[in-house]
Amino acid sequence: MGTDIGRANSEAVSRLCQARPMWTAVGIAREVLGLGGRIVLHAGPPISWERMCGPMRGGILAAILFERWASGPAEAVELAESGEVAFAPCHSRGGVGPMTGIISPSMPVIVIEDRVNGTVAYAPIGEKTGGRQARFGDYGPETIARFAWLRDVLGPALGAVLKREGDLDLTSLMGQALAMGDEMHMRNAASSALLSRWLAAPLVGVVRDGAVLEQILRFLTRENDQLFLNFGMAAAKAAARSTEGISGSTVVCTMARNGVEFGVRVAGMPERWFTGPASVVDGLYFPGFTAADANPDMGDSAIMETYGLGAFTMAASPPVLKIVGAKSFAEALALTRRMAEICVRTNSAFPIGALDGQGAPTGIDIRKVVETGIAPMMNTAIAPCNMEVGRMVGAGISTAPLTPFQEALTAFAETYTG
Amino acid sequence: MGTDIGRANSEAVSRLCQARPMWTAVGIAREVLGLGGRIVLHAGPPISWERMCGPMRGGILAAILFERWASGPAEAVELAESGEVAFAPCHSRGGVGPMTGIISPSMPVIVIEDRVNGTVAYAPIGEKTGGRQARFGDYGPETIARFAWLRDVLGPALGAVLKREGDLDLTSLMGQALAMGDEMHMRNAASSALLSRWLAAPLVGVVRDGAVLEQILRFLTRENDQLFLNFGMAAAKAAARSTEGISGSTVVCTMARNGVEFGVRVAGMPERWFTGPASVVDGLYFPGFTAADANPDMGDSAIMETYGLGAFTMAASPPVLKIVGAKSFAEALALTRRMAEICVRTNSAFPIGALDGQGAPTGIDIRKVVETGIAPMMNTAIAPCNMEVGRMVGAGISTAPLTPFQEALTAFAETYTG
Repeated sequence: MGTDIGRANSEAVSRLCQARPMWTAVGIAREVLGLGGRIVLHAGPPISWERMCGPMRGGILAAILFERWASGPAEAVELAESGEVAFAPCHSRGGVGPMTGIISPSMPVIVIEDRVNGTVAYAPIGEKTGGRQARFGDYGPETIARFAWLRDVLGPALGAVLKREGDLDLTSLMGQALAMGDEMHMRNAASSALLSRWLAAPLVGVVRDGAVLEQILRFLTRENDQLFLNFGMAAAKAAARSTEGISGSTVVCTMARNGVEFGVRVAGMPERWFTGPASVVDGLYFPGFTAADANPDMGDSAIMETYGLGAFTMAASPPVLKIVGAKSFAEALALTRRMAEICVRTNSAFPIGALDGQGAPTGIDIRKVVETGIAPMMNTAIAPCNMEVGRMVGAGISTAPLTPFQEALTAFAETYTG
Repeated sequence: MGTDIGRANSEAVSRLCQARPMWTAVGIAREVLGLGGRIVLHAGPPISWERMCGPMRGGILAAILFERWASGPAEAVELAESGEVAFAPCHSRGGVGPMTGIISPSMPVIVIEDRVNGTVAYAPIGEKTGGRQARFGDYGPETIARFAWLRDVLGPALGAVLKREGDLDLTSLMGQALAMGDEMHMRNAASSALLSRWLAAPLVGVVRDGAVLEQILRFLTRENDQLFLNFGMAAAKAAARSTEGISGSTVVCTMARNGVEFGVRVAGMPERWFTGPASVVDGLYFPGFTAADANPDMGDSAIMETYGLGAFTMAASPPVLKIVGAKSFAEALALTRRMAEICVRTNSAFPIGALDGQGAPTGIDIRKVVETGIAPMMNTAIAPCNMEVGRMVGAGISTAPLTPFQEALTAFAETYTG
């Protein structure tokens, strides 16, 4: 059976490495994700309103208010408690969302297609960088208004650019950005610059109103250093989806956190979540915040590490070290090497310059995690535990709990020998 | 006297490290550089038409044709030979130009001011990346037309953006770009992306014609990966000018090549050029070209190394290794360390991530060059020796000849003890 697993895992990682995710369209979640009725998607494994953490609840309230299912926060809380709004993981619909990961039916989503593997994935459009955002639990009027602007102004403009310019090859863009110090999870400065630069000229052709055009360009070029994160996440998800259902594979196809639990899914039994308590993030805090303000680990953005980026390519990203609180470049090299120990192989699409072009460690094998006791590590933003804060409070490195991997391996053995 | 030199050099490097070059304006060379009559500035130390290499002659012809001092190439050659056009180094007017470095009176130039040190420097606007360009010796109609477009369309638009947005802090931008893998000589992908991204939104407010706006944005965002080079060069020149004339300093204030000779100038006797034969570049060639097509080392771009960037910060730029033909990241680290041996100290404005934030080696001391026998190295593009080729043929690393440094040190001793 070891050989079979090896073959299955080899196939899984081949698909991950061959994936060529392209940004092909912008759609409305209701249509492209099939969100009928009152449903809100969220980050991480499934969770009920009762068990949700503060910022996740805040994100849900933002979605309810944006959808106008309630006329104010109090009514929104009542509705959420009533059971009349369904909640489901983004991952259950081929989507991914950062932090709270909220996607509601009227939200615009980017559509990323991997035609090599025949998969598609979705993500919301990043709200902005800094300040109050629903992904950190805010549900204030400015945040709600921004969602409307994303839906009515930015989304259609981006869609029109794609129709004019054709699809955008995200593998190429991500490879370039990796060479420019982005690990594409906590550092997206290069990828966002490349993306907004690519958009700038064609936007002129599709947005006729000068004031609107300038507003869009300011949003893309000045207010959104993490603009690319959601693109990277959907690209990673499109790649990872190609592994879902490969019989006999112990490669991880999903890692995600809902702020209460960390969950992992495995290619060979992709419907099952194995969960454990969300980790406390080891991080640095913005002025005015401390560890006491931090929510445990949250967000679908661990899809970046699932795809071999983020903390796994720390060695490519000296600038992220300070953001997440790593001490030295040697530590970054060591982290990438340690993650390589639990991966099947490396991805030549993502060469790491400081390692003379060695690729990103890719394809986490739950057997290796259990055998070595090395848990996957993730770079991550830190959300506030109090949803009224509504903004990012810090950033750091989180370590996945080992028990979900152990349970997954046990379940795998039972599934395939049972 | 050693102490005095030490003190003078310390002052020189303090000025280099404190420099905060800002992009403040776009002007016309005639006015801002005081180019009266028929004069063309060129890269490197002074050289007569008779001794110029092929591509430099091509660049001069481009300038003559652009200025309409001649009606065609044959007449332009006659005029150049006649002695009725003056030639002078860009450096003689506080300017710098890449490769042939041509600046003629009607050309638009960027104005970079370092208010900390009270200096100013100038560079032309980069023609584009790829294809035929005057900086590689082309003087064809497309190249001439592009200069007109730079003067009439792009230059005024950029100037208007500066008036609207205020000055642009290039030290900050360069520090960011260094963290993104640019060494700012042969690799300007990040700096160019950051610059064009900064320009995008405000351009909407100053360019009313949509077709022109899109043309400008395409030029800035899609056709000019080396866009920032000229900005970086003028920033470095503004910083380096602050050291010119520091009595008793053996710090290099200029390194430049005209394709025939390499020249160095020293802070303590800044008017004197010490020259030696321009080096053969150790490089990689584009398909269809070999070393036989290469002109010796050329351009004012060695101002980047004079300022501590370029080859001196190779350790910050894994992506440049392939461009210039370095074999491994270890070689890049070794190169930066070797250049540190001939520098006075490091510049904390330009921290190198892979060296845990150690700054760029800055302030080449001709005494250290002579004592160690370590010549400054430079990343560089390779021009064709035949001016009819008119385009870049490769890129590599050049090593300065030692004799100019030895002669400079001898002259320095004579000057200060004589």
